[in-house]
Amino acid sequence: MWHDGDAVGYLDQRALPQTVARERARSVDEIVEAIRTLAVRGAPAIGIFGGYGVALAAQLHSGTAFEAAVQRIREVRPTAVNLGYAVDRVLARADRDYLAEAKAIHAEQRDVDARIGRFGAEVLPRRGNVMTHCNAGPIATGGEGTALAAIIAAHRAGKALHVFVDETRPLLQGARLTMFELREAGVPCTLITDSAAAVTMQRKKVDAIVVGADRIARNGDTANKIGTYGVAIMAAYHGIPFYVAAPRTTFDFAMASGMEIPIEERSPDEIRITADDPAYNPAFDVTPGRLITGIITEYGVLQPPYEDAIAGLETRARILVGA
Amino acid sequence: MWHDGDAVGYLDQRALPQTVARERARSVDEIVEAIRTLAVRGAPAIGIFGGYGVALAAQLHSGTAFEAAVQRIREVRPTAVNLGYAVDRVLARADRDYLAEAKAIHAEQRDVDARIGRFGAEVLPRRGNVMTHCNAGPIATGGEGTALAAIIAAHRAGKALHVFVDETRPLLQGARLTMFELREAGVPCTLITDSAAAVTMQRKKVDAIVVGADRIARNGDTANKIGTYGVAIMAAYHGIPFYVAAPRTTFDFAMASGMEIPIEERSPDEIRITADDPAYNPAFDVTPGRLITGIITEYGVLQPPYEDAIAGLETRARILVGA
Repeated sequence: MWHDGDAVGYLDQRALPQTVARERARSVDEIVEAIRTLAVRGAPAIGIFGGYGVALAAQLHSGTAFEAAVQRIREVRPTAVNLGYAVDRVLARADRDYLAEAKAIHAEQRDVDARIGRFGAEVLPRRGNVMTHCNAGPIATGGEGTALAAIIAAHRAGKALHVFVDETRPLLQGARLTMFELREAGVPCTLITDSAAAVTMQRKKVDAIVVGADRIARNGDTANKIGTYGVAIMAAYHGIPFYVAAPRTTFDFAMASGMEIPIEERSPDEIRITADDPAYNPAFDVTPGRLITGIITEYGVLQPPYEDAIAGLETRARILVGA
Repeated sequence: MWHDGDAVGYLDQRALPQTVARERARSVDEIVEAIRTLAVRGAPAIGIFGGYGVALAAQLHSGTAFEAAVQRIREVRPTAVNLGYAVDRVLARADRDYLAEAKAIHAEQRDVDARIGRFGAEVLPRRGNVMTHCNAGPIATGGEGTALAAIIAAHRAGKALHVFVDETRPLLQGARLTMFELREAGVPCTLITDSAAAVTMQRKKVDAIVVGADRIARNGDTANKIGTYGVAIMAAYHGIPFYVAAPRTTFDFAMASGMEIPIEERSPDEIRITADDPAYNPAFDVTPGRLITGIITEYGVLQPPYEDAIAGLETRARILVGA
């Protein structure tokens, strides 16, 4: 994402890896549509994009029209807590220089990602197999990513890692985006179907799993891309450490338990073969905190019990950009 | 499958559900190709088709050419124990009326499926949600199926079941075949992605899971379509009974443990997005017997400890056709 005069620029993630399409959203409709259709996806990226979107809306609209535009942006992806955070923060800017605030959010994200990469690299083994699900890479955050920041930072630090990448149905973010980003970064990787995750853990010696997050409750319960919960159960069965990597903005300190997180359902058309097949297509699931070995944040790696660790995170001073 | 003069007739499963394409395999090449490309799939169906294939080969070839043809048929799907069983049984026919023997195998399968359906219907709840993976229905066996025979028989007996169907990547047998067969049978069903299985178990109250099998070892370890092992782990985590439905021909009484079952790998092209993405594409996985609540056979439902139950199954008299 980037500020682009009378528009917000973005990479259309749906066209990857075949096409690297840079697009310009020039209206609130185009901002909302880019988020809704997952052209822009990944919780932090949605937040940054939404922040730039509010700045754009302020250029185009005023009064109640502006308020309605902001509301539409805020509500397009209800599970992504970063979106509401970014929208609120931009709006709260005293001098109403919304663009400056959106840019500040973006700069902070880059810094936060670099810190997550550094802490995450430490928990990964010196050599071995790592697994990830969906995409929590540079494209998803506007920085270096979260889960992939950890893997890529470990690779840069000389750790000999190989990554098994779940394809991540129905939209194949793993097959399309994570494979693309890992190969760009020179990290050896192998694509598998989501349903091959269990046999891969059983027969290929997986040493650690790292995934991103869309929302984390006070007890560590983590909403993330559909399939994450199953991967966490399989990891526990095989005794494999399962890490979540996410910035503080992904934590919902007001939410006691992940069971309160609403599960967003997407169109059955994404999965059904014939037009009238009944289908259930949840976009997210919630992994209980007890299945999570550690949560990698820009402040360090949180360990259970998460109630204490996350309460501690809430009260930490904000990291200064470039600190 | 059916004998069709100078050919073996079959339904091309790859074209379903959009097209119901009846094809004719007129040579050993076409028999092997139909099995290799999964136009004909499902362990019992492959066996019956292979039996008819041997009869066709005997019409077309003799001497070493016939022997080579038989060998090619036998080896095209190494994991499917039914194929070797059917080929051997047809060849062992004293009067060399191979076609009669292939037809006898087919008739027995219909009878066996009906029995599996009856026993399976008994273990399913009177009402509730059932989950299945891949396709173990009429198309897969040449009879009424195994896992689906149980579900369909329960439905016919008045049990109010709703079925969650895993789409079953990469070839989508669940989305294409199981949804088609359940809807044909009038059983309420909902399609999900494989990665939605865990959240479905957590939030939709799944009461039982039934799957088919490709090969079962003496300790109950079960090779079945990739993803089955993960479903079994998730079922155990949620405390949901997990049943395998399979005829005696699926048991490999010579194999002590499923860890000896070779995992067939299929082409990376089935899953990768760009031509040079590295991919691992196992066709099967092995579910440990300890994760399986019961194995539904034509002789009744086997319960752990499976070493004893399966040894008992081996020594049971063969069921007479139509008995």
